Amino acid sequence: MMLNKFYVDELIKTALREDINYVDVSADYLISEDKRSDSYFIAKDSGVLCGIDVAMRVFEMLDETFTCTVYKKDGDKVNKGDIIAEFSGKTVCLLKGERTALNLIQHMSGIATMTSRAVELCKGTDASVTDTRKTLPGLRAIQKYAVVCGGGKNHRYNLSDGAMLKDNHIDSYNGIENAVAALRAKLGHMVKIEVETRNIEEVTQAVNAGADIIMLDNMNCEQMAQCVKFIDGRAKTEASGNITLENIADVAKTGVDIISLGALTHSVKAFDISMRMK
Amino acid sequence: MMLNKFYVDELIKTALREDINYVDVSADYLISEDKRSDSYFIAKDSGVLCGIDVAMRVFEMLDETFTCTVYKKDGDKVNKGDIIAEFSGKTVCLLKGERTALNLIQHMSGIATMTSRAVELCKGTDASVTDTRKTLPGLRAIQKYAVVCGGGKNHRYNLSDGAMLKDNHIDSYNGIENAVAALRAKLGHMVKIEVETRNIEEVTQAVNAGADIIMLDNMNCEQMAQCVKFIDGRAKTEASGNITLENIADVAKTGVDIISLGALTHSVKAFDISMRMK
Amino acid sequence: MMLNKFYVDELIKTALREDINYVDVSADYLISEDKRSDSYFIAKDSGVLCGIDVAMRVFEMLDETFTCTVYKKDGDKVNKGDIIAEFSGKTVCLLKGERTALNLIQHMSGIATMTSRAVELCKGTDASVTDTRKTLPGLRAIQKYAVVCGGGKNHRYNLSDGAMLKDNHIDSYNGIENAVAALRAKLGHMVKIEVETRNIEEVTQAVNAGADIIMLDNMNCEQMAQCVKFIDGRAKTEASGNITLENIADVAKTGVDIISLGALTHSVKAFDISMRMK
Amino acid sequence: MMLNKFYVDELIKTALREDINYVDVSADYLISEDKRSDSYFIAKDSGVLCGIDVAMRVFEMLDETFTCTVYKKDGDKVNKGDIIAEFSGKTVCLLKGERTALNLIQHMSGIATMTSRAVELCKGTDASVTDTRKTLPGLRAIQKYAVVCGGGKNHRYNLSDGAMLKDNHIDSYNGIENAVAALRAKLGHMVKIEVETRNIEEVTQAVNAGADIIMLDNMNCEQMAQCVKFIDGRAKTEASGNITLENIADVAKTGVDIISLGALTHSVKAFDISMRMK
Amino acid sequence: MMLNKFYVDELIKTALREDINYVDVSADYLISEDKRSDSYFIAKDSGVLCGIDVAMRVFEMLDETFTCTVYKKDGDKVNKGDIIAEFSGKTVCLLKGERTALNLIQHMSGIATMTSRAVELCKGTDASVTDTRKTLPGLRAIQKYAVVCGGGKNHRYNLSDGAMLKDNHIDSYNGIENAVAALRAKLGHMVKIEVETRNIEEVTQAVNAGADIIMLDNMNCEQMAQCVKFIDGRAKTEASGNITLENIADVAKTGVDIISLGALTHSVKAFDISMRMK
Amino acid sequence: MMLNKFYVDELIKTALREDINYVDVSADYLISEDKRSDSYFIAKDSGVLCGIDVAMRVFEMLDETFTCTVYKKDGDKVNKGDIIAEFSGKTVCLLKGERTALNLIQHMSGIATMTSRAVELCKGTDASVTDTRKTLPGLRAIQKYAVVCGGGKNHRYNLSDGAMLKDNHIDSYNGIENAVAALRAKLGHMVKIEVETRNIEEVTQAVNAGADIIMLDNMNCEQMAQCVKFIDGRAKTEASGNITLENIADVAKTGVDIISLGALTHSVKAFDISMRMK
Repeated sequence: MMLNKFYVDELIKTALREDINYVDVSADYLISEDKRSDSYFIAKDSGVLCGIDVAMRVFEMLDETFTCTVYKKDGDKVNKGDIIAEFSGKTVCLLKGERTALNLIQHMSGIATMTSRAVELCKGTDASVTDTRKTLPGLRAIQKYAVVCGGGKNHRYNLSDGAMLKDNHIDSYNGIENAVAALRAKLGHMVKIEVETRNIEEVTQAVNAGADIIMLDNMNCEQMAQCVKFIDGRAKTEASGNITLENIADVAKTGVDIISLGALTHSVKAFDISMRMK
Repeated sequence: MMLNKFYVDELIKTALREDINYVDVSADYLISEDKRSDSYFIAKDSGVLCGIDVAMRVFEMLDETFTCTVYKKDGDKVNKGDIIAEFSGKTVCLLKGERTALNLIQHMSGIATMTSRAVELCKGTDASVTDTRKTLPGLRAIQKYAVVCGGGKNHRYNLSDGAMLKDNHIDSYNGIENAVAALRAKLGHMVKIEVETRNIEEVTQAVNAGADIIMLDNMNCEQMAQCVKFIDGRAKTEASGNITLENIADVAKTGVDIISLGALTHSVKAFDISMRMK
Repeated sequence: MMLNKFYVDELIKTALREDINYVDVSADYLISEDKRSDSYFIAKDSGVLCGIDVAMRVFEMLDETFTCTVYKKDGDKVNKGDIIAEFSGKTVCLLKGERTALNLIQHMSGIATMTSRAVELCKGTDASVTDTRKTLPGLRAIQKYAVVCGGGKNHRYNLSDGAMLKDNHIDSYNGIENAVAALRAKLGHMVKIEVETRNIEEVTQAVNAGADIIMLDNMNCEQMAQCVKFIDGRAKTEASGNITLENIADVAKTGVDIISLGALTHSVKAFDISMRMK
Repeated sequence: MMLNKFYVDELIKTALREDINYVDVSADYLISEDKRSDSYFIAKDSGVLCGIDVAMRVFEMLDETFTCTVYKKDGDKVNKGDIIAEFSGKTVCLLKGERTALNLIQHMSGIATMTSRAVELCKGTDASVTDTRKTLPGLRAIQKYAVVCGGGKNHRYNLSDGAMLKDNHIDSYNGIENAVAALRAKLGHMVKIEVETRNIEEVTQAVNAGADIIMLDNMNCEQMAQCVKFIDGRAKTEASGNITLENIADVAKTGVDIISLGALTHSVKAFDISMRMK
Repeated sequence: MMLNKFYVDELIKTALREDINYVDVSADYLISEDKRSDSYFIAKDSGVLCGIDVAMRVFEMLDETFTCTVYKKDGDKVNKGDIIAEFSGKTVCLLKGERTALNLIQHMSGIATMTSRAVELCKGTDASVTDTRKTLPGLRAIQKYAVVCGGGKNHRYNLSDGAMLKDNHIDSYNGIENAVAALRAKLGHMVKIEVETRNIEEVTQAVNAGADIIMLDNMNCEQMAQCVKFIDGRAKTEASGNITLENIADVAKTGVDIISLGALTHSVKAFDISMRMK
Repeated sequence: MMLNKFYVDELIKTALREDINYVDVSADYLISEDKRSDSYFIAKDSGVLCGIDVAMRVFEMLDETFTCTVYKKDGDKVNKGDIIAEFSGKTVCLLKGERTALNLIQHMSGIATMTSRAVELCKGTDASVTDTRKTLPGLRAIQKYAVVCGGGKNHRYNLSDGAMLKDNHIDSYNGIENAVAALRAKLGHMVKIEVETRNIEEVTQAVNAGADIIMLDNMNCEQMAQCVKFIDGRAKTEASGNITLENIADVAKTGVDIISLGALTHSVKAFDISMRMK
């Protein structure tokens, strides 16, 4: 799987422009442009790697002479102490790109790692783990990509490609069935409809409305299990709201098809990777 | 303190373009453009608010008729249940902007809240809390702003405005003193020099070199206290490396002037705020 | 207007930058900045209007004093001679914006008009008319919006939000069923799968694979009718390839659910609208 | 003739960003990144080719390993069945770029082909065929380039590089002669002045004013012939308004120097080209 | 203001982004956002004003509450000590915008002032003063506009809107006449052809070729006078090369139609204007 | 020292887009795309070179086949008649890039040359020469870089990385000492504080306030010498206001540490370099 290259290049440029107004007053003033160094990335923790190509691209964009050997690729498990990649380039460029490259790979690997933990906890059930639209501005593409690298799946990308009905959408329509019917009359054939529900009455309406997916919002496990049983395959079911690594295994056992976690992208813990010069 | 408005507007546009390819297939298809709603933001946790102007700006950019009353401003303490702002606008626009506005304010408030906790733990000492360059691509400005709102201070903005010497910079210069002298000969008079040190020998060299700030990198509290004593005001001292809310109070007591935490910006936990329509 | 405002503003800026390097050497040199004019748009043909808000926005962006009264809105039928909008502003700005505004509204109305003719021809059947990804660079959003204004529906927006399997995708998988299964294992729950088929054998495989939509590609009406009958509701059916206003009514009668026309967006005939100054 | 490379690259990026939010959920999920394919473009109709370099550039931008052999270049006649180019690259990238590349080359070749037909119909006269400012937003450069490839010439690029006086410009000046004199006093020496006229009186004034070009706007052939005869070489003459492939030969015979057609760029019919994988 | 507003706004944003990474560490930290000040621009020298609208726009973009009264407009003469504009706004925003606003107005007024001196020196002759393409990157539009405000005229805007033949263009064509004929066959009817000449032989060829303008490049006044006499109105004549305020009066007396000065835009002396807070 | 490559590339694109709307109507129409030429840059004056890499990059971005040999690098002294670089590429691309490349290198070398003259005049004193924020919009990075190449140093880059207190900042604080104390309480540890003073009273306050740098604004040499003596190393001193190449040697002798000149960047005289084709 490859991210849109232009997107990645733009993001890297954005990051480097933030980090360099015009020159690096430490490296540019002290180190000869001709000097070269060998360097490597080493994992300081165990988890799932994501963003190695993006990180290497940072240096490539700064230095045409940059070369690298990559030992671990996106989606691979890494253990503390693993060498992730070895690379060589102009010392000045390695120093200029170091922070930007690490900021990217640590964030992306943080997402992949937490996702893989969530997926692991759902093993033995049919539940898949997905992200949400609770992403950081400008980072949605790399965040959603990282979720996939961690073994998760992506929820809708944005407001244009999937329909999600909440009570505010339904309000003017006298019930879920009317709202879904009104929407179906306009929606393209490639777009699915998901309906948010808070109780068995709304679930019933959503089933009758022919919703493709029914979100069980902020229910406890008992309620969810009851709803899944009632729906009985007539729609996909998604558990959402206050799901954490602590309770996800229990949620998965309710039989829901999908479990979505905002924290995968809105509360990322950076995965620790260091860059060392030989 | 006001963020550069163009920066904020660009960031919001970036976020909204990610979230809307062309239309919102739920709201645009179901809700009349004329319909208006009243809405509010409510804190679901206790902490320090940041990003309320940015969040309101999201709706303003989508809807010229949008109006709001803001009850809490950036830097204010909020408690669970507090109403942060009440606002009114086109229902369609409120729904389109909700996620983007919340993603921004939750991230910024998350940073301010963690920063304020770190600052609180240093009370009674002279240590100030600062961020690092471990920020997320495209978000540095709002992240550094949030640190200030939380009571922290900003480290250098980027590679162009502050000099930081690590062993890789010093390598070719036969010692810290030579490197600092070489740099001082080129550096503008507004730029300070910080030197990374790992032991008392390097600290001694840095003092002799006339470094403005000496970073005590990855030292334990005992080592730091010893170094601070040795430096004795001849340079500012910065504690850095593996500092958490658990150990920051002890670090502060070593007498260091500055404590920098990468986690303030690289491992942000979103602060929980909800938007509700009346 | 349902379109993302930032998108529209960017598009208008792009158009105006193409049309003005720095000044308008006719209007700026001849007409006083203070002079004002009243003006209007008049339909020179009959069809479906689209882009009136976009066109008015052109003038608004050039002239803060611009005011307008709009008589016909997007999706409305207009007849030759109808006054579409009356407006007033600085003469210089009206002259500068005229061509850009007309280029936009004529293109969008051209799409809406052709779409509405296609929809008209399908009346009495269940077939809906959709666009394709055969759009013009930079214009996809306004083109897809115009299709909706003309009574059509949108196919997938892009490669990220809907899966479409052609023989090149299927090649490595030993048959449609394997390919669809492999894809389903990775795809998010909001994404549908459409399979391109060229004959009844492939249709059979696609049905067995559980495809959400089956495209009947370049088949004649007889073949299509036969496939629709065979599929019998187990998947949605889409007619595609060489469909024109001449043959669309016959295609619709085969019972297909969706008819897609590339020409709606790749071969647009501008709808004739004039701007006149009073 | 070479288009400004940066312009083309920006346009391609715009198109690809529209077509890919982050990944291609069909190709990226199903096809290994290492797989390569051979492919070619084949003409499905006869006409004049335009945009082959632009189309190849799409793949080049997606895939550094892409290679191609181009058999027909911009401006060449192609016949139905002609192989236009053969190329090879990563299968995933060929699939991702296919639609964007075809959208561009089909649009540009559509313009070149219609232009060449218009030029053909004027053979034996001195009339040249030109475009107008009735172009599509963001596409003016490639549209004007395509007109030249089709054997046409370009009218002014935009409002900054050629002066065109209409009645609204002339209004405040008590006649064409005053207006042209006022303009000439300000205009740089590289800019020509064209005056729109609707009858022999205005033509007379325009000649007296020393207009470089006189546009004969919406006249019938008889009127145009009369005006051309009257002008007698004292200015260039341009026929404009409601000119089609049906009546252009008659217009050319009136002796006008230039015939401009808005339809060349505002009502383009895509030229049919297919991409096939071997 | 006649300049394309989007262009100006983009330029101002570029300037402000250069000048503010995120906050103004002096003003934002010290001055309350509510504080307002009255301020004015005062001329510290005598010359021609240019850029007052651009300068006021800087503050307007930073501060929605900004108001101003403008006493001198673009193109007006100003004397040392003249108050140019009075304005009022948030103190913080006035301080943030001051440098950017002054940088723009001083540069533009510097160009207008030097241009007006050159024009003054040509009084009594028919020579007009023009700029060249020797402009500063990103500033061409405001520089060319400033030349007009100073009483000069604009040469071609860029390589796309005027043809200028130098020996390198002519080389492959066996003489100027062939080259001009080859070009005329392709050029649109709105584009003029200028030919660079270095001696009377080349001038003769250029006249025979029917060049619209003949540039007399790096000739002395005697040679120019001789060439002008020889050309005798058959083409416009442009003096170019090493023309300064010292020798321009003599050049003008040779009878040339146009005198172009690179220094108007490539060697601008800022015009001194101060901003004072009351 | 290397400028941020993305910055340079963006600037070059900006310049080339200004200079080419779509094609070069001289070169593209007359010269075969295959034709190649050899060319060189020659100094027409004596001074310090700056911008040779930027200039070569212009051609490289237009022409992948471009090759060059550079004889003088940024910061080198060049004499009239020196060959700066020899290069080879497509004739069409050399002609298209010539003006843009020269505009950049002449501006940058103009700055470096004037800076080097200022530095030369300060020889034998401890004064260093610096720039200001009086730069041209969009050009700050290359202008500040050119100052360093000329032997000068850079003042603060922008409002975010250095604090400068003027009377407007101090106003609300009842004296310099209070204002500096208030600011120090908020400022990050990497940021220095400079205070503008106009007389010995303000200088005294600034010293007491612990200002890092004291600007002696618009003082005469006698006053400056007196202030320097009074300050006696307790702060760095900066001379500012109306300093020219005529009086800088005298200013340097007052003992100030830094002399800043706005003219280095706001009133640049282009350094004369020609491009010649062999």
